[in-house]
Amino acid sequence: MGRIHPEIFFFGAGVAEGRASMRNLLGGKGANLSEMASLKLPVPPGFTISTEVCNYFYDHGHKYPKGLADGVAKSVARVEKALGRKFGDAQNPLLVSVRSGARVSMPGMMDTVLNLGLTDETVQGLEKVSGNPRFAWDSYRRFCQMFGDVVLGLKPEDKNAADPFEEIIDHKKITRGVKQDTDLNVDDLQELVSEFRALIRSRVGCDIPQDPNEQLWMAIGAVFGSWNNDRAIAYRRINNIPGDWGTAVTVQSMVFGNLGDDCATGVAFTRDPGTGEKGIYGEFLPNAQGEDVVAGIRTGRYISIKASRVWAERSGISEAERASNFSTLEESFPAVYKEFLKISNQLERHFRDCQDMEFTIERNRLFMLQTRTGKRTAEAAVRIAVDMADEKLIDRKTALRRVEPEQLEQFLHPRLDPGAKKNVIARGLPASPGAVNGEVVFSADEAVAVAASGRKVILVRVETSPEDIHGMNVAEGILTARGGMTSHAAVVARGMGKCCVAGCSALEIDYGAGTMSANGAVIRRGEYITLDGSAGEVIAGRVATVDPEMPPFFKKFLSWADKERRLGVRANADTPHDARVARDFGAEGIGLCRTEHMFFEPERIEAVREMIMAENAKQRGKALAKILPMQRGDFAGILKEMAGLPVTIRLLDPPLHEFLPREEDEIRDLAIKIGTTPEHLKQVRESLFEFNPMLGHRGSRLGISYPEIYKAQARAILEAACELRKQNVKAMPEIMLPLIGERKEFEILASEIREVAAEVFKEQGVKVAYTIGTMIEVPRACVTADQIGAVAEFFSFGTNDLTQMTYGISRDDSGKFLDDYVRREIYKKDPFQELDPNGVGELMRIGIERGRKANKSLKIGICGEHGGDPASVKLCHRLGLDYVSCSPYRIPVARLAAAQAAIEATQTKKEFKDV
Amino acid sequence: MGRIHPEIFFFGAGVAEGRASMRNLLGGKGANLSEMASLKLPVPPGFTISTEVCNYFYDHGHKYPKGLADGVAKSVARVEKALGRKFGDAQNPLLVSVRSGARVSMPGMMDTVLNLGLTDETVQGLEKVSGNPRFAWDSYRRFCQMFGDVVLGLKPEDKNAADPFEEIIDHKKITRGVKQDTDLNVDDLQELVSEFRALIRSRVGCDIPQDPNEQLWMAIGAVFGSWNNDRAIAYRRINNIPGDWGTAVTVQSMVFGNLGDDCATGVAFTRDPGTGEKGIYGEFLPNAQGEDVVAGIRTGRYISIKASRVWAERSGISEAERASNFSTLEESFPAVYKEFLKISNQLERHFRDCQDMEFTIERNRLFMLQTRTGKRTAEAAVRIAVDMADEKLIDRKTALRRVEPEQLEQFLHPRLDPGAKKNVIARGLPASPGAVNGEVVFSADEAVAVAASGRKVILVRVETSPEDIHGMNVAEGILTARGGMTSHAAVVARGMGKCCVAGCSALEIDYGAGTMSANGAVIRRGEYITLDGSAGEVIAGRVATVDPEMPPFFKKFLSWADKERRLGVRANADTPHDARVARDFGAEGIGLCRTEHMFFEPERIEAVREMIMAENAKQRGKALAKILPMQRGDFAGILKEMAGLPVTIRLLDPPLHEFLPREEDEIRDLAIKIGTTPEHLKQVRESLFEFNPMLGHRGSRLGISYPEIYKAQARAILEAACELRKQNVKAMPEIMLPLIGERKEFEILASEIREVAAEVFKEQGVKVAYTIGTMIEVPRACVTADQIGAVAEFFSFGTNDLTQMTYGISRDDSGKFLDDYVRREIYKKDPFQELDPNGVGELMRIGIERGRKANKSLKIGICGEHGGDPASVKLCHRLGLDYVSCSPYRIPVARLAAAQAAIEATQTKKEFKDV
Repeated sequence: MGRIHPEIFFFGAGVAEGRASMRNLLGGKGANLSEMASLKLPVPPGFTISTEVCNYFYDHGHKYPKGLADGVAKSVARVEKALGRKFGDAQNPLLVSVRSGARVSMPGMMDTVLNLGLTDETVQGLEKVSGNPRFAWDSYRRFCQMFGDVVLGLKPEDKNAADPFEEIIDHKKITRGVKQDTDLNVDDLQELVSEFRALIRSRVGCDIPQDPNEQLWMAIGAVFGSWNNDRAIAYRRINNIPGDWGTAVTVQSMVFGNLGDDCATGVAFTRDPGTGEKGIYGEFLPNAQGEDVVAGIRTGRYISIKASRVWAERSGISEAERASNFSTLEESFPAVYKEFLKISNQLERHFRDCQDMEFTIERNRLFMLQTRTGKRTAEAAVRIAVDMADEKLIDRKTALRRVEPEQLEQFLHPRLDPGAKKNVIARGLPASPGAVNGEVVFSADEAVAVAASGRKVILVRVETSPEDIHGMNVAEGILTARGGMTSHAAVVARGMGKCCVAGCSALEIDYGAGTMSANGAVIRRGEYITLDGSAGEVIAGRVATVDPEMPPFFKKFLSWADKERRLGVRANADTPHDARVARDFGAEGIGLCRTEHMFFEPERIEAVREMIMAENAKQRGKALAKILPMQRGDFAGILKEMAGLPVTIRLLDPPLHEFLPREEDEIRDLAIKIGTTPEHLKQVRESLFEFNPMLGHRGSRLGISYPEIYKAQARAILEAACELRKQNVKAMPEIMLPLIGERKEFEILASEIREVAAEVFKEQGVKVAYTIGTMIEVPRACVTADQIGAVAEFFSFGTNDLTQMTYGISRDDSGKFLDDYVRREIYKKDPFQELDPNGVGELMRIGIERGRKANKSLKIGICGEHGGDPASVKLCHRLGLDYVSCSPYRIPVARLAAAQAAIEATQTKKEFKDV
Repeated sequence: MGRIHPEIFFFGAGVAEGRASMRNLLGGKGANLSEMASLKLPVPPGFTISTEVCNYFYDHGHKYPKGLADGVAKSVARVEKALGRKFGDAQNPLLVSVRSGARVSMPGMMDTVLNLGLTDETVQGLEKVSGNPRFAWDSYRRFCQMFGDVVLGLKPEDKNAADPFEEIIDHKKITRGVKQDTDLNVDDLQELVSEFRALIRSRVGCDIPQDPNEQLWMAIGAVFGSWNNDRAIAYRRINNIPGDWGTAVTVQSMVFGNLGDDCATGVAFTRDPGTGEKGIYGEFLPNAQGEDVVAGIRTGRYISIKASRVWAERSGISEAERASNFSTLEESFPAVYKEFLKISNQLERHFRDCQDMEFTIERNRLFMLQTRTGKRTAEAAVRIAVDMADEKLIDRKTALRRVEPEQLEQFLHPRLDPGAKKNVIARGLPASPGAVNGEVVFSADEAVAVAASGRKVILVRVETSPEDIHGMNVAEGILTARGGMTSHAAVVARGMGKCCVAGCSALEIDYGAGTMSANGAVIRRGEYITLDGSAGEVIAGRVATVDPEMPPFFKKFLSWADKERRLGVRANADTPHDARVARDFGAEGIGLCRTEHMFFEPERIEAVREMIMAENAKQRGKALAKILPMQRGDFAGILKEMAGLPVTIRLLDPPLHEFLPREEDEIRDLAIKIGTTPEHLKQVRESLFEFNPMLGHRGSRLGISYPEIYKAQARAILEAACELRKQNVKAMPEIMLPLIGERKEFEILASEIREVAAEVFKEQGVKVAYTIGTMIEVPRACVTADQIGAVAEFFSFGTNDLTQMTYGISRDDSGKFLDDYVRREIYKKDPFQELDPNGVGELMRIGIERGRKANKSLKIGICGEHGGDPASVKLCHRLGLDYVSCSPYRIPVARLAAAQAAIEATQTKKEFKDV
């Protein structure tokens, strides 16, 4: 049969004028219905009016293209013919649903009308055909309610008012003395219909049309109109969906799963969306409507016997009881079950992905209402991808693209026991994932003391500073009241792979009283709390957690990723422990080993402070000599863990004032120890004060001002490497100078380090290979990369600082406006979370181009927080970096993102993209 | 006669083998001697050994090229022949000087030996020839001393020791009971020669050679050697002179101005180096050596009668006394005077610039010893340039290039009376030029109160903040203990054209006691001090100042500059007064009118604080409504002063916390006024605290967060413009958004402003032309300039902030290391004073290229401090900017620099460059 109208696509009853690939024109729903029809699957017949009509509608003052009315009439006639029912017929009426459908799913944003075609007359026909007056009048009641709301716009009078229809129903239940909607009888429902219509007449000034065609056209207009309602516009703005995509309208014949015991409705996945296990997984309700399943009003039953038995066993239900009270689709509708199984397999093979299907059984006849890609957990996503590749349903590249890199991190951290109860007292930012519980402590020293006695602690601070590192180190998790996703606490916690909830602004902390309170709950020092760092939740008491597992398919999946990726993946790690963890997760070296954390260890900080208070290079050298052996030990430990792999060690970066004590008593203690007065110490502190420490006396500027510091660090690194060399361990240190902005700065420091190296090699009698390179973190380094690149052996983009300086935004202070900027889409993304491709990325591009031009063998990486963000990793691939470096726990994420980037780069044609 | 040796250049006695243009080969001195010889001027004959020999000397282990020894011998013979004297002759000996000479002058850095050729034998000949035994032995004594020091290296034993030769002389004077060197007789001098040589023998282990040729070669070696002495290396490093330029050696016959009353020696300029007045200007000493003039041991006499009479009149000396005791060269040596006048004119015409000449008269015979470009004051520089162009000696372009743009600023500020005594108690940075005196006050309010009673005040603060503006406004000058050349005090003072000494670290200020002290001096509140902002001096008491004058030649000179330049020159001005001053100095509009200063006026700050404390947009709007009429008045005043010229007005930029009070009592007062508690006020202050305010919630971010603020400002600007329009005054406002880093930010704010404009035009019933543009001051704006440029009408580079962010350096904190970076030449220049061409300039280049590509009509300027720095102005020209904007008092500087940039750009061949 030929097409009825160019913008109308018929499906069902042996016809399929559309295809899955026509989602732009038909919307996701319409396209997949056509696709199912083309597979000869039992789809209730209907037709889709294309998105182009939507655009026409808006371009022409809410008018329709020529011939559309006629086309719709003819299409309805074709549906009537296929089903042997007639629209508006008093004996055997055809009812339809009218639904919206955009090319991407916009759940709940636009409108739907069901049971359209019901009138005072046709409801009688439905009564007869179904033999169920209550069903017929309930359907009419629902239709009136939906039509009144969606099409006639009868909404609550203000935001706080109840739904006017529900108010009438509630009133009816009270007068009838019943509790459930289902307790209302046919008379009640008939009265409700009258009362609904009276309300509509009084509020809207018109009645529900008694002509089904009028109903249909009003509903079509309402659906097109809903494309530009406030909710839909807001949703599109947030999700970056262009307004000119438009929505399609699908008009489909209604089928009913609630006409009797030979009817049912259900939803099912082709594989378990929780575990990824192969096999049908879903539930159904006999004699029910689709809404009932979705709304969860009645408890669904399993589709397969197997799943049902697992559930029964876990719930302590006998097989006999199960079989009689909870019989499955397989048991209740064996023939339909077989057919459904076949269809389900067919759909999965056809779409080559796990499907999420809706179906209805009307009088033992199966109808497929929808199929779409099934949403799934991280575990299921990886397992399904691996299994399908092994089953040759998809190739490995496709498998790798099927998993969101972010999801992989869920494998690596403990989670809250899904079955446990929790009393959430406050929410903050999900700064570092995982779930932990412990006793509340309010200072780093307290954390160390309590942890030393073998108890688990959660460190709670208004905000953390480098002084708190030793406490963070021993704590299970960290909770702060201030600071964003890139605050000190968040960054350090992610680096340590420790759970952290940051910026929990509801929290009030009273250090003096030793209490924290939020939303009325007060927690005292020593009491237990639980943190969910993935959800940002602060929970009172001790909630059980479950340990992470790394199933074999996870490793297999990552090994496939490694074969595809070009980018190297290294870790940011400051301790031997972190280095070991990172290597286990697949790190190919360390891209950033920060040395300042080592300075904060309690036994060292004193010498560090002595160094800062030194009045000349000699005194400074003396203090540094105390730290040298300890640093040498640190470096030896890390280099050994990473034997055979490069380890980039950054020399001291933060401004010196960060190392000085702040509290009065600490100042007094230190003054006594180093033989000076507290006043002098405070003077030194003041003299080191900076208005903008981010742009102050830090990084290589310290190395220029106090050459002793960098020389001592270089010595510690190279002595450690020589020691290992003597033990036949291959250490590969890469010495990195922070905050270089000018070639001469680099040259001076590099030549001092080379002098130290020559001395050390002479003293030790062995030589080790080492390189000297620089962070690229000030914009000037990017534009003068040709000059710096000519003398440096490697670059590592420090994109945290580079982002701060490129935007002129201090991340510590950005809380006041950055959220607003992201919410209002002034910035597409928070640039501290995802590398800004246009600004920061462009400076990187310039830096890479110029650096490589000056030095063909220049090795270039990235060691900012962005190194673990999938979109940023992909940008790094496109920019041609050699490697990314990230927190140990982000390494699997980076490995996958790097693989996806490589695959995407070779993909020449656009693929059909599942949503 | 042919050349003796390719690396030896003979001059004098009718021969001139070199030219002035051969300065690279012959050094400045040698080249100019040859040039004078080529002009047939009476130059004592001699020869120059080229700089290439110096390089050969260092490349070949202190050996000389083949044939050089022979060439030197032949050259000496030629000198002997020309003078009829013989080197080493006991009857009529030839004496020579051996001098260094590099291609640029390195005053005092390298060595010179005079009277070479004197030995125990030749000294007898000199006695005879001169008929003056004392002269002969004094010459021998001087030679021994110089040769011992320079050639044999007999230096003081350590830095604190006296010169060993001077010690012997002092001892001799004591034993002889005389005070002056000149009181020593021939016997004494003979003893000194013996004692000198004994000292040399004992300390160096050898004697002064008695063979003149040996003396000559040792001296030549010493001069070449001095190219690499520590002083010379340090000087070259500081002045960026390459080490391979080398020095030449000039060997020249000695002539003597101290053989009797028919002898004299002197120095003279072809024009007055102080005023630029045309006519010979200089002094001479009869019967004296050149050293005596330079050392100022005896008072010189004037060369011309005219100059002498001016001096006599000023000094109260009668014409009779003058003529007898202070007779001039014109009177004492009338024939020589005529010849000298002729030569002086000839040299000036030849070199086409004012000459600084040295001459000696030996027995009534004039010898020219040196000529070079004369150093001069700013006034003289401009006057000489203008006069010479008018005299057609040079063209106007050359005239414009003859003046350092920096010098022009000296015309615009009062200066200390050069004759006044001054007691300098401390030195700081010369932050803003001029000289002022006034009573010391320690707060802005005090300044206002004292100034209101008609007294002059100097505002003394540890550092200033925007809160001090009203005090700075009424003060004569500002003195701060902290802060650099770009500190708040310095920047604001320069903008106001007010004298400022900043960062005077010796200063201790006790606000409580009302005292400032420095180096032992204590100054109390109300006592007078004087500041010299050009020298950075703080002077106790009241020193008289002299007012600036703008002579007619100054205006003429600048009008020439205006014809050459392509760059527009605008002013940074925030008040009608500044706008008027700027227009007088030639500003072609305002490039930066900051609006925040207007917020600090005492009657407004309260409303501003009310606005900050507002809890919603409505309250904020109410507070802003109080400020609006005042701002409208400000803008009307400025726009009116600049009628017909563009005025770029920047909307509010600083973070809001800058406007809140700091002192306890101010906080209390404010709390009462706005009906809140001091605690709440402090909480607001704390909530606004920023770790890095430079990178915080400021600039257009305020406009995004609080749209009311920018809307109110836009309204004030546009209402003012409409008002003026009604008065037939052409206002040309350009509204500038600060700190834009992303196109959407600009679009949102610009569209809000356009809405306001539409409203205002409707209300007022008139329209005015206006544009909306942005500062380009974050690196991201530069790299995304194609996007921002597509929507903005103009760009103005805010190079203060752009430099801070490009380098990652806070200028407020840079004091700790920036000096060191400049001193060690890590940075060639302080990037806050001179635009960094490689980093910041490169980002500007990218920004300009991309901006213009997106928008051909984009107007681009600069409004950072750099707009008044000559090197930066030239870079702006090369980058293709449309205009620069600077402090009113820098406008003449910028006009000249812009002209020079245009001239330099068209100059295709390298010119001979005067030093």
